[in-house]
Amino acid sequence: MAWELGSQIGRAGWVLLTGGRNQGVMDAASRGAKSAGGLTVGILPGSDRHAMSAAVDIPIVTGMGNARNAINILSGDVVVACGMGAGTVSEVALALKANKSVILLNCDDKACTFFQNLGGEQVFVATDVTKAIARISQLLQVD
Amino acid sequence: MAWELGSQIGRAGWVLLTGGRNQGVMDAASRGAKSAGGLTVGILPGSDRHAMSAAVDIPIVTGMGNARNAINILSGDVVVACGMGAGTVSEVALALKANKSVILLNCDDKACTFFQNLGGEQVFVATDVTKAIARISQLLQVD
Amino acid sequence: MAWELGSQIGRAGWVLLTGGRNQGVMDAASRGAKSAGGLTVGILPGSDRHAMSAAVDIPIVTGMGNARNAINILSGDVVVACGMGAGTVSEVALALKANKSVILLNCDDKACTFFQNLGGEQVFVATDVTKAIARISQLLQVD
Amino acid sequence: MAWELGSQIGRAGWVLLTGGRNQGVMDAASRGAKSAGGLTVGILPGSDRHAMSAAVDIPIVTGMGNARNAINILSGDVVVACGMGAGTVSEVALALKANKSVILLNCDDKACTFFQNLGGEQVFVATDVTKAIARISQLLQVD
Repeated sequence: MAWELGSQIGRAGWVLLTGGRNQGVMDAASRGAKSAGGLTVGILPGSDRHAMSAAVDIPIVTGMGNARNAINILSGDVVVACGMGAGTVSEVALALKANKSVILLNCDDKACTFFQNLGGEQVFVATDVTKAIARISQLLQVD
Repeated sequence: MAWELGSQIGRAGWVLLTGGRNQGVMDAASRGAKSAGGLTVGILPGSDRHAMSAAVDIPIVTGMGNARNAINILSGDVVVACGMGAGTVSEVALALKANKSVILLNCDDKACTFFQNLGGEQVFVATDVTKAIARISQLLQVD
Repeated sequence: MAWELGSQIGRAGWVLLTGGRNQGVMDAASRGAKSAGGLTVGILPGSDRHAMSAAVDIPIVTGMGNARNAINILSGDVVVACGMGAGTVSEVALALKANKSVILLNCDDKACTFFQNLGGEQVFVATDVTKAIARISQLLQVD
Repeated sequence: MAWELGSQIGRAGWVLLTGGRNQGVMDAASRGAKSAGGLTVGILPGSDRHAMSAAVDIPIVTGMGNARNAINILSGDVVVACGMGAGTVSEVALALKANKSVILLNCDDKACTFFQNLGGEQVFVATDVTKAIARISQLLQVD
């Protein structure tokens, strides 16, 4: 699903920004974006390019560990969370704190409800990639 | 409840570390700790001491906004969350990511369940301040 | 000189990364790079895109003030300092600390000497843009 | 000299804040302060307390490498540089950028001149610890 999301982001001509590592959702989304000719940015936690996804075009090396999550969400126009590991939860929460719009993709009922209670109108639950992409389009037009 | 928690932390001779601002849980906990003769550290988001709680002894001025949440949780031996605003949610998530023990105080059922699912054994739900303090004691001894 | 440097970086097909603001060397270099069809990244100090150079393609919004200088130097393959304000001095020093190669362009004798004493072989003094570009080429080939 | 500086800071009842590691100037100053009964804060670069000076009372764990230098200088009322490694140079420059007063202790002529040119009135050169302490007293009274 992350790969498909990245792919459709790339096809739309948007820049994909992720945490930049060579694993999980970050890597799949970046590879998806590259497959569609998109441009990818990776905000890396380490102090060099170690463990970077091969599908990242522009590595930003922060040397700040998970404090870089705050940069991830401030830098994006829209935040899409795919899955719900602890790192992702911190990013969704930081995004809500920063008044960013958040799209939750592939979250279970309890996680969706938790964040909808926390963020109200800022949170949109997308049941598939196409609905997430439609929501991004809508948000970018409003801005 | 935050004031009472701070007070008992101060009485125990532990250092209280908060986000340092003059509002909400941070301020109440810091004032509680000072009332009991404790030492308080405040990790401030701004680039000066503007809006600092008057009950902070040692201000750490980060100039990093909510990225300072990552410092809050790395610096503590134990993380206690009191209430569940977006900033607190980000800190609990970052704490779990960093393998820290987290105590949830004053969380509603859904928030408690959400984080227990996410963090398993790392998460302890305390129904009152006394139980939170007992858990901190236990964790500090194990370390 | 910053404009010319950016222009030659863009022409070489390299990505230009600066502090991203709409003033001074950052802005001039970014505009130079765009004039040559280059790609520009701006690591912004603020928590939004306020005061961003119009010539930045990819804004990274850090919300970290001058702590973002550490990201600037870790993210680059080569660091070029053009002029010597306090922000630039901090970046050159952080670059030396991180074992990065630094090229000093347009520095007065005392500043050049100071940094050559501090950084030894890591520091290269370029008397004009062409020599700086030649040095970058050389460093990128060695890597 | 760092030990003596820390010792006199501790004796004056001021809080000593350093980079917190168990080496060089940071460690010597912290040990000096403890010898005089002072309170010491250490802003650590790593993501745990590894390599912390044993003379640090309050460790702040940033996980941010040398980006933590920006926190060091924002948190202090006065910045004292003792010696001139690359890390220290970055801190003096960041301090000047943040409009902090800086005292240079134990710098050679060229380094002193370089920073006096850069910072003007913000920079005070102290030829010994007693003069540095006198200058700190003066600056704290003005505030």
